[in-house]
Amino acid sequence: MKMNHHYEEISQSYLFSTVAKKAADFQKKYPDREMIKLSIGDVTLPLAGAVIKALHGAVDEMGKAETFRGYGPEQGYAFLQEAIAKYYAGHGVQLDPNEIFVSDGAKSDLGNILDLFDQDNVVLVPDPVYPVYVDTNVMAGRKVLYAPANEENGFLPMPDDSVKADIIYLCSPNNPTGAVYTREQLAQWVAYARKNDAILLFDAAYECFVTDPALPRSIFEIEGAKECAIEFCSFSKIAGFTGTRCGYTVVPMAIEREGMSPNKMWLRRQTTKFNGVPYIVQRGAAAVFTEDGMAEIQHNLDYYRANAKVIAGALDECGVWYCGGKNSPYIWMKCPGGMDSWTFFDWLLETTGVVGTPGVGFGSCGEGFFRLTAFGNAEKTKIAAERVKNAILSLNK
Amino acid sequence: MKMNHHYEEISQSYLFSTVAKKAADFQKKYPDREMIKLSIGDVTLPLAGAVIKALHGAVDEMGKAETFRGYGPEQGYAFLQEAIAKYYAGHGVQLDPNEIFVSDGAKSDLGNILDLFDQDNVVLVPDPVYPVYVDTNVMAGRKVLYAPANEENGFLPMPDDSVKADIIYLCSPNNPTGAVYTREQLAQWVAYARKNDAILLFDAAYECFVTDPALPRSIFEIEGAKECAIEFCSFSKIAGFTGTRCGYTVVPMAIEREGMSPNKMWLRRQTTKFNGVPYIVQRGAAAVFTEDGMAEIQHNLDYYRANAKVIAGALDECGVWYCGGKNSPYIWMKCPGGMDSWTFFDWLLETTGVVGTPGVGFGSCGEGFFRLTAFGNAEKTKIAAERVKNAILSLNK
Repeated sequence: MKMNHHYEEISQSYLFSTVAKKAADFQKKYPDREMIKLSIGDVTLPLAGAVIKALHGAVDEMGKAETFRGYGPEQGYAFLQEAIAKYYAGHGVQLDPNEIFVSDGAKSDLGNILDLFDQDNVVLVPDPVYPVYVDTNVMAGRKVLYAPANEENGFLPMPDDSVKADIIYLCSPNNPTGAVYTREQLAQWVAYARKNDAILLFDAAYECFVTDPALPRSIFEIEGAKECAIEFCSFSKIAGFTGTRCGYTVVPMAIEREGMSPNKMWLRRQTTKFNGVPYIVQRGAAAVFTEDGMAEIQHNLDYYRANAKVIAGALDECGVWYCGGKNSPYIWMKCPGGMDSWTFFDWLLETTGVVGTPGVGFGSCGEGFFRLTAFGNAEKTKIAAERVKNAILSLNK
Repeated sequence: MKMNHHYEEISQSYLFSTVAKKAADFQKKYPDREMIKLSIGDVTLPLAGAVIKALHGAVDEMGKAETFRGYGPEQGYAFLQEAIAKYYAGHGVQLDPNEIFVSDGAKSDLGNILDLFDQDNVVLVPDPVYPVYVDTNVMAGRKVLYAPANEENGFLPMPDDSVKADIIYLCSPNNPTGAVYTREQLAQWVAYARKNDAILLFDAAYECFVTDPALPRSIFEIEGAKECAIEFCSFSKIAGFTGTRCGYTVVPMAIEREGMSPNKMWLRRQTTKFNGVPYIVQRGAAAVFTEDGMAEIQHNLDYYRANAKVIAGALDECGVWYCGGKNSPYIWMKCPGGMDSWTFFDWLLETTGVVGTPGVGFGSCGEGFFRLTAFGNAEKTKIAAERVKNAILSLNK
């Protein structure tokens, strides 16, 4: 028996556990001080009424022999594939429902999609980055290169013709930086991928936060992307499904590499190693796209957007560089006074009781930066933003 | 870009599509004849009332801010891990809840578990077999050996010391044959695995059909199994969750290979490439193990068991060799008159209107055998069994 020793190469991340420990220590040291977490990556608002109604309806169906559903199609029910296709059509992207694969979340598919590719491919990921892109490749023994994101490129790395990559991860709006690629920038990535026979794995999990019509919400808004990109999306952020688990992956029919069709391969992978998303959950997800569902969901998104605006406004007032905050639930700020990420974390917590996430935890290029999130309670976010502003202003005195 | 060309090595199975086409042709040819499907692998009874009640309760929780659940533990909520541990304790197996990983189904985990092992391992699967075991390994480029199951060994292949395998799939009660290993037989497999440093992947998806207390329901009833086996189980058959999606995988703390812990590796795999089962579904699954849930579920299982008994009784009356039918929802019969699997399929359909599944579709050792299932409607199953019996008796005249 030979084990997969690549598991030994994954670096243990203590980012969130260290953050949690320091927060707990603070609360123990200062039991009377109010701590506010602007480090939450999870949603906090409950599911929309239209979704709850659809879930109850589907549960009732499962309790009666006449309407009970057993095994469903592994790639998702047509009613949900079609609802997703209609949502895409709303921002100008035409998809065949057979290009849409309903999944239990973007995270699963971002990892599992690698099954389609040979081990011997070069992977390019931005730094800083959502850790799953790197870890899933390291676990499979692939070489990972990094595209440095920094203040100069606005945390939006662009293709470098001297780097030959086969599999490229892009995330826009980005986690953790909140930066959003323009159409022109994505067109350069599409051109690079087509020229180099590469495939772009485009993580669109935060597309619902884009309100600026000039910014793309899908890689497929870019001409030629259907021959070189796979897109991953999720109901987690648009509709608060982090604990309800539903996402989808778009694998265009038009991509072909080495005479093989990733669409057909993914269908084979899913029918062999997956059994579909619960019928109940798919009914809830489809309700997101109804008129009532969309109205409620926009209300929730506006709540988070207002939080982002409050945080960004506070940073504007104290002249701190940041990206994100608009078209994104994340604000990625430069630590003031030249502090490194963890020094700022400690200083901010001690000074204000506000908890954020050290940027260096997402990659070495994140050093000196800090992530704040808009998923918290509105009142508390206002208090936290005011405290952060005052603390930074006091530094400059 | 190099694709995974092992996908080209997977043999396309036309088993179920051919069965469906032949059934449709029959119905077209004889619009007035009643066709009965004894080929259904899916459950047909609705979810139990206790499960429906728990699902509704959890949906309500998701609709209120105070009780809303976001990201949950990837390995499952403690309330469900503990309920599963208690269920195992009921048949004498003590598990630590941290050995239990809640999943979206046995099929997913049976494929995904292979992430833990090097490509260079020899895989042993029984023939005939559930196709997922073979396909997931072929997709990953592993060499697959077959352990022949046949009438002589009662479709329960035993270890062969001349065969050196690293990863061994066992399924008991078996799909498709319905055969169930005894404790003594499983003890031989455990001994083989320990001696050869192999790992047994034990598919216990049908354990709930075992009523004979002399037969094991878990590999962990066998001494020493915790050092060499991983068990996969599902709510699909015990509680009709085929469309609700929940299962679990037991990875004992005690297994170690090459200094690595599969339990720790699987935790890492799941936290990196999976985001847990919907909270709502986990609440439904936990209700299976309540007093009310168990009573209802036994009632449903008894319904299917009665169907199996009816089919087995009919075969007894016409002297046909079969295995399964007891402690299993599957009946695996020898085709009468020396017919091969497809000849018998065609003859049986034409003669009786009953649809079954040709054994050869599950592997070459299934040639000359035929699978009937107990998941259909009770009245129709009685009619079908009577027709099968009379047709076979008429053959012998």
